[in-house]
Amino acid sequence: MADKRFFDKAGPFSLKDIVARINCTVSDETRLSLIVTDVAPLDSAGPATLSFLFNRRYKATLDQTKAGAVLLTQQDAPHLPESAIGLISNDPYYDFAKVSQLFYPEPVVEAQIHPTAHIEETAQIDSSVRLEAGCSIGDHVVLGAGVVIGANSVIERGVTIGANTRIGPNVYIGYADIGEGCRIHSGARIGTRGFGFAMSPKGHLDIPQTGRVQIGSFVEIGANTAIDRGMGPDTIIGDGCKIDNLVQIGHNVVMGRGCVLAGQAGVAGSTKLGNFVACGAQSGIAGHLTIGDGAQIAAKSGVIGDVGPGEKVGGYPATSMRQWLKQHAFVATLMRKGRNKE
Amino acid sequence: MADKRFFDKAGPFSLKDIVARINCTVSDETRLSLIVTDVAPLDSAGPATLSFLFNRRYKATLDQTKAGAVLLTQQDAPHLPESAIGLISNDPYYDFAKVSQLFYPEPVVEAQIHPTAHIEETAQIDSSVRLEAGCSIGDHVVLGAGVVIGANSVIERGVTIGANTRIGPNVYIGYADIGEGCRIHSGARIGTRGFGFAMSPKGHLDIPQTGRVQIGSFVEIGANTAIDRGMGPDTIIGDGCKIDNLVQIGHNVVMGRGCVLAGQAGVAGSTKLGNFVACGAQSGIAGHLTIGDGAQIAAKSGVIGDVGPGEKVGGYPATSMRQWLKQHAFVATLMRKGRNKE
Amino acid sequence: MADKRFFDKAGPFSLKDIVARINCTVSDETRLSLIVTDVAPLDSAGPATLSFLFNRRYKATLDQTKAGAVLLTQQDAPHLPESAIGLISNDPYYDFAKVSQLFYPEPVVEAQIHPTAHIEETAQIDSSVRLEAGCSIGDHVVLGAGVVIGANSVIERGVTIGANTRIGPNVYIGYADIGEGCRIHSGARIGTRGFGFAMSPKGHLDIPQTGRVQIGSFVEIGANTAIDRGMGPDTIIGDGCKIDNLVQIGHNVVMGRGCVLAGQAGVAGSTKLGNFVACGAQSGIAGHLTIGDGAQIAAKSGVIGDVGPGEKVGGYPATSMRQWLKQHAFVATLMRKGRNKE
Repeated sequence: MADKRFFDKAGPFSLKDIVARINCTVSDETRLSLIVTDVAPLDSAGPATLSFLFNRRYKATLDQTKAGAVLLTQQDAPHLPESAIGLISNDPYYDFAKVSQLFYPEPVVEAQIHPTAHIEETAQIDSSVRLEAGCSIGDHVVLGAGVVIGANSVIERGVTIGANTRIGPNVYIGYADIGEGCRIHSGARIGTRGFGFAMSPKGHLDIPQTGRVQIGSFVEIGANTAIDRGMGPDTIIGDGCKIDNLVQIGHNVVMGRGCVLAGQAGVAGSTKLGNFVACGAQSGIAGHLTIGDGAQIAAKSGVIGDVGPGEKVGGYPATSMRQWLKQHAFVATLMRKGRNKE
Repeated sequence: MADKRFFDKAGPFSLKDIVARINCTVSDETRLSLIVTDVAPLDSAGPATLSFLFNRRYKATLDQTKAGAVLLTQQDAPHLPESAIGLISNDPYYDFAKVSQLFYPEPVVEAQIHPTAHIEETAQIDSSVRLEAGCSIGDHVVLGAGVVIGANSVIERGVTIGANTRIGPNVYIGYADIGEGCRIHSGARIGTRGFGFAMSPKGHLDIPQTGRVQIGSFVEIGANTAIDRGMGPDTIIGDGCKIDNLVQIGHNVVMGRGCVLAGQAGVAGSTKLGNFVACGAQSGIAGHLTIGDGAQIAAKSGVIGDVGPGEKVGGYPATSMRQWLKQHAFVATLMRKGRNKE
Repeated sequence: MADKRFFDKAGPFSLKDIVARINCTVSDETRLSLIVTDVAPLDSAGPATLSFLFNRRYKATLDQTKAGAVLLTQQDAPHLPESAIGLISNDPYYDFAKVSQLFYPEPVVEAQIHPTAHIEETAQIDSSVRLEAGCSIGDHVVLGAGVVIGANSVIERGVTIGANTRIGPNVYIGYADIGEGCRIHSGARIGTRGFGFAMSPKGHLDIPQTGRVQIGSFVEIGANTAIDRGMGPDTIIGDGCKIDNLVQIGHNVVMGRGCVLAGQAGVAGSTKLGNFVACGAQSGIAGHLTIGDGAQIAAKSGVIGDVGPGEKVGGYPATSMRQWLKQHAFVATLMRKGRNKE
């Protein structure tokens, strides 16, 4: 059970109510009256708890679970103990997200203008906004309904933030428009100066970075991630992108919808990502490239050429995943052969 | 055109005035009376706009441009449409930086001590300084003329900051002296404890880090970059260095003039970089090494030995770029041959 | 000598008093009355200064030193000049840490509640706590004796922090319990939302992250490092871990005692590290893995499988260090041979 100091739990809910919200078939329709009080992993779940199996590494724990109900695939259902009702789903992870949100909805925002917040007079702030201690709101900033600005965050001149977007503590946002329903976590830096200058032995000369950052709706931006503003064109992050912690996004980068960038990934300036591109942790993409829709970049790889739609690449310089894995196997085989000859 | 909410534009300027400030020859001296109102990329420029071509990837857009004047090299000049005046330069990127700074100069600093700033009495603050909301200035700090300290930044005891240096919001600076004309972006951490301790199964034992950070003039430090103070000697960043976002600089690192470190690069403790060393994104240099003047470290490479002046290295462990590229080609060739034999 | 603007020095101490605190034999017992005023590297030490040699790269400077006493190994002792007393230690680095702490103890904390600090009424704050300017302390937060919260840091609802833990400026902590004697540096983000969601073309769906961060005692966390809270289980950092700057720790990661993670390393979600695991700079460990006690991960390597206790791995995909180095040598040899045939 989640620690009450930090999380407020909703419910309980009947299994019937839960099942109505997701896309599953129930192993025993006669037990839908079960009252479910919480969600929990298989090994800590009890009879009034709903559990789940989506990562098959943890399959071994299934037949020992004391959970009252378990979300899982058809394939895993036969291993379920009798005590547990099976909720058979094509995507148990997705359905678990829905159930978990039911028990642990995001806290409702209580409107507040903290007395230590600094607000310029020309800012337009909806009456339902929450401004936490020590935050700073610049001239002509526009904050929509239900926006939260965390403690000691700084929103500079002219920025607009759409309804229900929540900004964590110690965040900086400048030169940007942010859509609705975004989550921007502590320490993110949005709209900082792009790394643009003309190198010269007389002293590198800055190029004014006169573009913006345009962020769509329902975007998540991780802790201490940095997104530079454009140099003239804008840096653009499409709707529904998920960006993890400590990620670097250079100036003029354009990202389509639903891209996922894992921790410490980096995208250099002016590169374009299509929709639903996935970049693994610590991967890097060089500048001025085009990455097609649905392309997948393996963790730690370094991409120095365009990647087509749906391609999966890895290694550095990145090649197709198949080629990259083959190359490793090939060298290993050569080494074994070489050793046998000695 | 840059968004007026965020950027103030200067001008217009006559082409004659512009040309006087840069190093170019003009394709048609009779048209120097053109009044230029802005700068813009080739594809969005209009007849009163100055554009540029320095990245030859974008050469295809040249003959369609509606720009009134275009900065470009002699080599590209023949492809310019008649409507555009050619400004032929040996370094169009450098000259564009100058023109762009003319239209978009950095905003003039308005002196201000925000009422919510916290300032220790012993701090020496020039009357032209700007202290934004919620910043904190420690004992005996010295701030030169025209210094800006962004909102909620923290400058600790004894730090000195030279004239016209601008510190963004949410920055930390301690144990440091900073030169003139620097730009330190949001979330940078300067002078934090170096990672120095004696490992032991009884518990790792901290080594006091009693050095400083000494930063020259006209240095740029990116968002969320961390520069540790020295362990006894100092960590030193030379004049004119350009450091991008999320870079890690360990204790006792010494950097000469004009070094350029791209995003997420890292330099481990006690390594010395000469002048004008360039480190690609996500590259790493191990500790206690010497990197010569003008050396170039490819993106994502891992340097574990000294690098001579002017050398170009890549890969991990990094070897000469030539060797590294050859090695990749060699394995690929072997694989092709192996496959043909099967 | 350390800069007095930033560091307060204790002492002087007699060599006799110093030797009593460490584990060494003295080359000349008759000279223990030497009064030592400071510690310094070999090349800048004077007759009243204690120096050290532990990194043998710097051995050449030993016979020229003017230090009054030098901590070093038996092996290096013969190269010591007559003017210097040898303090012969099995672990001169560890003993130097002790001596250096004697001269440069961490500053004593002066209790203070800064008038600009924001404190919720339900917080329990020991009378010896130091709250710096602009920090924000949430509901039901518990701060033990001698705790320091740096300027503009944000400690959210319900967090507990053990005695003598010091938090730097601009830090965020939420959903966490922190042990005693920790050092958490500027810009660290602890307890931010884990990167957990169900991917879907209809829009990625967030999984509530209802776990905590549990940090042991005497843990160090570097500048701008991010540690996500667990998804349901907790993220756990064991006693005495040392985590450098810009490190990323995913949700549900469990770390034993005394682990060391160098700058820009990353550990993905649900991975378990044993005790005293060492991870080099820019290394990455994939999710859901188990890394045994005392394992060592080379800098920049990418670990995608379990690592046994005491194993040393490198490369990407990481293999044993021996295998990894062999493979590099093998390809180089093949290339040489290939060239000779041409």
